[in-house]
Amino acid sequence: MRVLGIDPGLTRCGMGVVEGSVGRPLALVDVGVLRTSSDLEVPQRLVTIERGVEAWIEEHRPDAVAVERVFARSDVSTVMGTAQAAGVAMVVAARIGLPIAMHTPSEVKAAVSGSGRATKQQVGAMVTRILRLDATPKPADAADALALAITHIWRGGAQARIEQAAARQRAALATARRAR
Amino acid sequence: MRVLGIDPGLTRCGMGVVEGSVGRPLALVDVGVLRTSSDLEVPQRLVTIERGVEAWIEEHRPDAVAVERVFARSDVSTVMGTAQAAGVAMVVAARIGLPIAMHTPSEVKAAVSGSGRATKQQVGAMVTRILRLDATPKPADAADALALAITHIWRGGAQARIEQAAARQRAALATARRAR
Repeated sequence: MRVLGIDPGLTRCGMGVVEGSVGRPLALVDVGVLRTSSDLEVPQRLVTIERGVEAWIEEHRPDAVAVERVFARSDVSTVMGTAQAAGVAMVVAARIGLPIAMHTPSEVKAAVSGSGRATKQQVGAMVTRILRLDATPKPADAADALALAITHIWRGGAQARIEQAAARQRAALATARRAR
Repeated sequence: MRVLGIDPGLTRCGMGVVEGSVGRPLALVDVGVLRTSSDLEVPQRLVTIERGVEAWIEEHRPDAVAVERVFARSDVSTVMGTAQAAGVAMVVAARIGLPIAMHTPSEVKAAVSGSGRATKQQVGAMVTRILRLDATPKPADAADALALAITHIWRGGAQARIEQAAARQRAALATARRAR
């Protein structure tokens, strides 16, 4: 499968596309960052991100999108912009019916390095090794986006099945509630 | 001018359209809420909000959109969803070139009631009086959306000019920096 990993941010949105499947070598397809200038108003920056995500999806046709799950306890000065960028990225993918998964930073660290407390450097080094690259992708947001895509391929299949089952159960319960 | 006020939220997104200008009576055009079910995944809920905001803009053709500015220090359990909903609402408006303003809750309270610490009830009562309604719009998100639109009409003109001047200055400084 081909997965687009997105490390959302208003200033830098990490983008990484990885192809492969569990138990086989993974391959880098593309990596980069979407940047928006702080000279622009927030709505304009979000439109730039929307267009960028659309362009990446159109070019690489991923089977799924993996977005970093943002928590409110992160750095307060940037967390709102990060959440807005994540919301826009999710809408672009959901609008065209692409499956979207969210993985927490510690899930990603654990998946690629074996430890949920790995440093940025360790994650970057593991991404470089897993994808057999000559150098660690820069900036860190780009490497993080690849780590998200790798995480999704390695644990996405099982997780997606669990979530689909849970969603079906919720829908069935909601239908039962409405029928009562 | 006609303003669409949006009180963003994942479960309930308050929507209110007000028409008028400074120094003249304001008129209610429409008010309501977009609701999304917690049975759905977040990306699907954001797509529902995107379509809802598009439909309101298409139906009412506002001259501007006023969105509540969300702060990370708000209720942590809902703030990320609120920020994502706000991001999606801003993108829908910015994409078609509509001017977007953000007003903080205390700016809205101060504009409609004279006090930045007014209660939800006081804001609702003032919205009812300002728009000469028979009853306070429910739920509170709907009344808050109208309060945002009123705030924008009353203080939006001056604020928009200040922000445009600031944006021009930032752009000029950025150009000067690049030219160096």
